[in-house]
Amino acid sequence: MAQVKPSLAKGTRDFSSDEMEKRNFIFNTLKKVFKKYGYNEIQTPSFENLSTLTGKYGDEGDKLIFKILNSGDYLSKASPDLLASKDSTKLIPYISEKALRYDLTVPFARYVVMHQNDITLPFKRFQIQPVWRADRPQRGRYREFYQCDVDVVGSASMLNEAEFILIYKESLQALGLKDFTIKLNNRKILTGIAELIGKPELIVDMTVAIDKLDKIGLEGVNKELLERGFTEQDLAILQPIILLEGTSAQKLESLKQTLASSQTGLAGIAEIEKVFDIIRHLVPNEDLFTSIVELDITLARGLNYYTGCIFEVKTNEVAMGSIGGGGRYDDLTGMFGLKDLTGVGVSFGADRIYDVLEELNLFPESTSSSTLVLICNFDEQSELYSLPIVQELREQGIASELYPSSVKLKKQMTYADNKKIPYVLLVGEEEMNTGLLSLKDMKSGEQHKLTKSELLSFLVKNNS
Amino acid sequence: MAQVKPSLAKGTRDFSSDEMEKRNFIFNTLKKVFKKYGYNEIQTPSFENLSTLTGKYGDEGDKLIFKILNSGDYLSKASPDLLASKDSTKLIPYISEKALRYDLTVPFARYVVMHQNDITLPFKRFQIQPVWRADRPQRGRYREFYQCDVDVVGSASMLNEAEFILIYKESLQALGLKDFTIKLNNRKILTGIAELIGKPELIVDMTVAIDKLDKIGLEGVNKELLERGFTEQDLAILQPIILLEGTSAQKLESLKQTLASSQTGLAGIAEIEKVFDIIRHLVPNEDLFTSIVELDITLARGLNYYTGCIFEVKTNEVAMGSIGGGGRYDDLTGMFGLKDLTGVGVSFGADRIYDVLEELNLFPESTSSSTLVLICNFDEQSELYSLPIVQELREQGIASELYPSSVKLKKQMTYADNKKIPYVLLVGEEEMNTGLLSLKDMKSGEQHKLTKSELLSFLVKNNS
Repeated sequence: MAQVKPSLAKGTRDFSSDEMEKRNFIFNTLKKVFKKYGYNEIQTPSFENLSTLTGKYGDEGDKLIFKILNSGDYLSKASPDLLASKDSTKLIPYISEKALRYDLTVPFARYVVMHQNDITLPFKRFQIQPVWRADRPQRGRYREFYQCDVDVVGSASMLNEAEFILIYKESLQALGLKDFTIKLNNRKILTGIAELIGKPELIVDMTVAIDKLDKIGLEGVNKELLERGFTEQDLAILQPIILLEGTSAQKLESLKQTLASSQTGLAGIAEIEKVFDIIRHLVPNEDLFTSIVELDITLARGLNYYTGCIFEVKTNEVAMGSIGGGGRYDDLTGMFGLKDLTGVGVSFGADRIYDVLEELNLFPESTSSSTLVLICNFDEQSELYSLPIVQELREQGIASELYPSSVKLKKQMTYADNKKIPYVLLVGEEEMNTGLLSLKDMKSGEQHKLTKSELLSFLVKNNS
Repeated sequence: MAQVKPSLAKGTRDFSSDEMEKRNFIFNTLKKVFKKYGYNEIQTPSFENLSTLTGKYGDEGDKLIFKILNSGDYLSKASPDLLASKDSTKLIPYISEKALRYDLTVPFARYVVMHQNDITLPFKRFQIQPVWRADRPQRGRYREFYQCDVDVVGSASMLNEAEFILIYKESLQALGLKDFTIKLNNRKILTGIAELIGKPELIVDMTVAIDKLDKIGLEGVNKELLERGFTEQDLAILQPIILLEGTSAQKLESLKQTLASSQTGLAGIAEIEKVFDIIRHLVPNEDLFTSIVELDITLARGLNYYTGCIFEVKTNEVAMGSIGGGGRYDDLTGMFGLKDLTGVGVSFGADRIYDVLEELNLFPESTSSSTLVLICNFDEQSELYSLPIVQELREQGIASELYPSSVKLKKQMTYADNKKIPYVLLVGEEEMNTGLLSLKDMKSGEQHKLTKSELLSFLVKNNS
């Protein structure tokens, strides 16, 4: 066996138990909210047939898909000519038929189509799994990372959109975030604007440019619009729309006037009004619209994909890109031959949320360790005395450990410290003689003498 | 976008929400027990550097590792001669530097070595993650499957072995299993037997053969032993040891006589006796040894690997191979240059346990759905009336759905049926007028008229 100096594959991470507790805090919080809204978990395999993934993410995306080498004599199907030409791209289909999941959306579409006779529409599912991309790794960007997607397919009702806004609100608040904005737009409004200018064919160029308003400012947007085929006159029409100010309700009123000539534009406005209306009925006593929900006409996201409402979520407490987004799509499963199935979904950026919670110190302290009490091991006598105690504690549901050897007490204390174990039980000669056990609170340093039954009830009480 | 008839990659599976609930029941049950014994979760990346994995699983194992094709112009490092020779095996290191995790053990060893300055010994971790093997798929054998490993490194104490037996017992009982056997052996006893015969160099051959006693019977074992270099005289010595009968204590007494000349053999016996002794102290009022724990001298498992105690678990309720196993190893991290770190661990076969629980109908009914109540949607009026109710239910922690459109009631009922939603709320004209809502119990078919506050308290009470 050759000895290798171990290292991680580029762009991948180990997660320590501390990190896992924090990650699970995020995932469990999200799952709990998703389930409350009737969404259930599914999982798809880590790799798919390459043909399932190819062509779904554009040429750039195709390059970032991790391909898996066929097993066995994988070169047997490759012609000598092809090998001699050393054309890496052309050779791929001959030596690789599987690839790692690139996102959760395409596998979900495949799932819906393959299981269309088993699932009941509307089909509400969430999925929390890793995806892999052959991106150049950099700070905050990994080659393996988790996506958390919640989608419903087979329902056109704006109730779904309204509930996603509440799912965002409830999830982020449950995670401890206090100040965040859920931005909303509608692809049909963007279409209406392009129609108004008389250049519906340039809608992608228009939205790509105005989506950057936050980053490059109005001047930058205008410059890009001119480069992308718009005229100064077009800009004059666009300007007041892009810079629309006021409450969401005021913006909608203004847009109704502006887009009066566009059926599609008005339909988009009506959808947003319907979403707002449903929210007002769902939570009658709360005005979400003054603080959390905001209509943002510049919001586009992966536009080619979305056909109705578009969402994006940002925290206002930390400088960070969007921590979530989504929208409605009318033809997700069309790529696999199942037409006219509408759907809407949102996604949570788990890694970014992790960084935000870390920076704001929002992870609950109790997630840092699972062991509540360590029994120190003084000698064989104390070990034998402690064995039934540690097991009785476990039978009461208390996570407990007996240090497995009688090394120096300092070392055992360090073990408790490093594992952030809140209580240490000391069972020395005096304790065994009197039956009064010494329980040390590692945070306060206080020490109490307790009988075994007092110990049990104290720890049961302090077991969260 | 080319249209593809969707299919799963060979040997992989989708998991429906029903299956996910059941799988999560298993994983959550195991995690809870692991944590009670002081084990914490870690995770390692799905792919490792190929060099980390190669050479760790034997030649056959190396072939079953899924290799990931390098990104970009992956052929650039391959010489034309090598390509012309079409030698698939030799080409691998030039076009692939990453590979999918084959098991959780080698990545764990890498983790311990890489993080040796951050972790505190004894380091107790569990890991529940998928692994991938390019095996030929068949019934019950998949190319992607989960492993659940629990290990401690840095402690030689037999307390760990004793606790693993209790972890097995407690986990399997928590899953609902009633009749299972935890088999125990010790590599040193096997060494002692090989010494007794005077052929210590044939220990692997000996154990590979006698490990098959269950499957091929005594005659088969003897035949294989003769083929592997043992003589009829050797068999005469081995026979009574292999066929040792009686309680574990009786077997140990007998072995002490037989292996009196082997230091190693006696050390193995002493380790097992120590494990039994510790268990008797941990659970003084229970005699595990008459029913659950059994000394089995023929048990070997991946012997080259284990150096002390060896475990294997079988259910006696269903015909099924082992559902778990493990043992002590003294040089796991040696492959990465960290010597003399002893460890012991066990593993649970999640897929097999799933099949066993399914066959015995042991999955709790409540795991089948997460939504407790569906509010039916009669018309716009009933939808508006129901919106604040569905949200109030959620605020009480009750998973609830309002059907998103007013399709035929039959369709809505089918939705509830298929999702196994236990209660359906009917809000028609009469209900809105009287304020008495109709709650239907989908199992009994009974229907009750309740005020909104009665509804809330009823559902809160029935929310498990």
